[in-house]
Amino acid sequence: MTKNLTLEDTAARLRGRDNILIITHIRPDGDTLGSAAALCSALRRLGKRAYLYKNPGVTDLYLPFVEKFFAPADFSAEFIVSVDTASTNLFPEGFSGGVDLAIDHHPSNSGFAAETYVDGASAACGEIILELVGLLAGPVSKEEADLLFVAVSTDTGCFQYSNVTARTHLAAAELIERGADSARLTKLLFRTCSRERLALEGYIYSNMASYHGGKINIITLTNAALAALGVTEDDMEDIAALPGRLRGGAASVTIRENRDGTSKVSLRTTEEVNASRVCAKFGGGGHAAAAGATIKRPPREAAELMRQALEEALVGGE
Amino acid sequence: MTKNLTLEDTAARLRGRDNILIITHIRPDGDTLGSAAALCSALRRLGKRAYLYKNPGVTDLYLPFVEKFFAPADFSAEFIVSVDTASTNLFPEGFSGGVDLAIDHHPSNSGFAAETYVDGASAACGEIILELVGLLAGPVSKEEADLLFVAVSTDTGCFQYSNVTARTHLAAAELIERGADSARLTKLLFRTCSRERLALEGYIYSNMASYHGGKINIITLTNAALAALGVTEDDMEDIAALPGRLRGGAASVTIRENRDGTSKVSLRTTEEVNASRVCAKFGGGGHAAAAGATIKRPPREAAELMRQALEEALVGGE
Repeated sequence: MTKNLTLEDTAARLRGRDNILIITHIRPDGDTLGSAAALCSALRRLGKRAYLYKNPGVTDLYLPFVEKFFAPADFSAEFIVSVDTASTNLFPEGFSGGVDLAIDHHPSNSGFAAETYVDGASAACGEIILELVGLLAGPVSKEEADLLFVAVSTDTGCFQYSNVTARTHLAAAELIERGADSARLTKLLFRTCSRERLALEGYIYSNMASYHGGKINIITLTNAALAALGVTEDDMEDIAALPGRLRGGAASVTIRENRDGTSKVSLRTTEEVNASRVCAKFGGGGHAAAAGATIKRPPREAAELMRQALEEALVGGE
Repeated sequence: MTKNLTLEDTAARLRGRDNILIITHIRPDGDTLGSAAALCSALRRLGKRAYLYKNPGVTDLYLPFVEKFFAPADFSAEFIVSVDTASTNLFPEGFSGGVDLAIDHHPSNSGFAAETYVDGASAACGEIILELVGLLAGPVSKEEADLLFVAVSTDTGCFQYSNVTARTHLAAAELIERGADSARLTKLLFRTCSRERLALEGYIYSNMASYHGGKINIITLTNAALAALGVTEDDMEDIAALPGRLRGGAASVTIRENRDGTSKVSLRTTEEVNASRVCAKFGGGGHAAAAGATIKRPPREAAELMRQALEEALVGGE
């Protein structure tokens, strides 16, 4: 692992370079896109040529925020910066080049870049970029404030996740003071969704099965059900969190049928159950509160296997 | 309307009194309860006897936060303070006495109290109480920080509503620095709900009817449907906001059957439609973006009347 730069050194590296290409991660979310675009804008304010790598995974939701920053086909980069990207297997489709500087908030950053700045205490990479832009180019512009508000709010579930700190709210306050249109952005990002997403949520809430006095909650999503709802991949973001909304639940399971009829299982748990240990029984893994596995059975059978494993875990106190 | 006190004067009034009873509003929410309990705690830190009026409307969600502050039956108040209460018809059940001091963030406060402090720029009354406690008793305690985090987060939909300002986030940052357990509280208040609430959301998302290219969205909740879902009044909080989650919608209508078979209509609109004007056609009223009416017809007929009125408003550009 490369030595971690200071933020001042990170700013100095950027100040000393030009023709900068900024990389976002695969399946780009609001944090990687907002952070990258805000940094790009600030570098341009310094008089530099800077562009975003044209990540083909950008969804319609985020495209209007970032497409103006996309690099033209003939752009020849002299310095490549990655933002919010923890490892090379998270590089965006089509990108394989070396990275000169990685800016990240994942403590697990693999150190793939020539130089790295990681601050694992930041809930969002956007918090880092806000400070970095301050060092580089002074207060953020109105557009940068909007972009960083997108970054910070999306990576914290609009200030609801456990990663939120006082610093996260201080960043939000600064961004609003600098012109971020938080009312419009939170409405777009959190208070509205597609018809298909709404129908999918309705299906999940109406069809969840509960066991063990409500501690185990399972939703099974077959390809037939998803097709009937008309949902696409865009509508599936973070759905594994939804069954966990039930108060008193200890383990929530989202089972999605793969194209070959097997089952992709996502497990979310409270401290009562170790999700990683349960999923390991099926060859999967993950973290204590969020894990997954592929079970080579149809969804209904996978659901029954998960129910049994979770009953055992709850009874055994695993 | 009485003259508006300064915050310093408000603190002075409280400092000069003892045996203080704090009133919360009818159907108490997190803002009135968290604000009142935090103020009560701070007054006790000053050595005063202070209690909350035992509001019979406190739901199970909030009871654990406030019941320790409830006044005993024999408490004889010498000074009565209301918090987050805009008018006398919002007094809690069983309370009819005069109020010496009203602390509120509703610009519409009717001036019912002998003296009043109103700050309409605060998204939550909790923002005011945070400043007031600072003047009265210094930094908030860990418990007061939790209570005021409940207040500020609930009155802003966890920082999602358009009333949020930079100051709201600064308040949240200060509360977290003072020990507010924001992860636990946001999970309790926003990320989890009752089985019946979840089922109700599922029903709404699965049964909304759309018209006018998705601009008009209507959900009809009959007594039979609500009974089948097992929902109680506790589960109905803010449901009129749910159909408005559909992206691209301009008007969302929630129709609830009254006990007598007539219809209670709630309308939420974007700037494309004036909700108050539409509801006025049925003898109702409200604000430009949120209004209501009672239509003396069964729900299905009320839905059709609303659909027609909204089509006209959209076509006419009303």
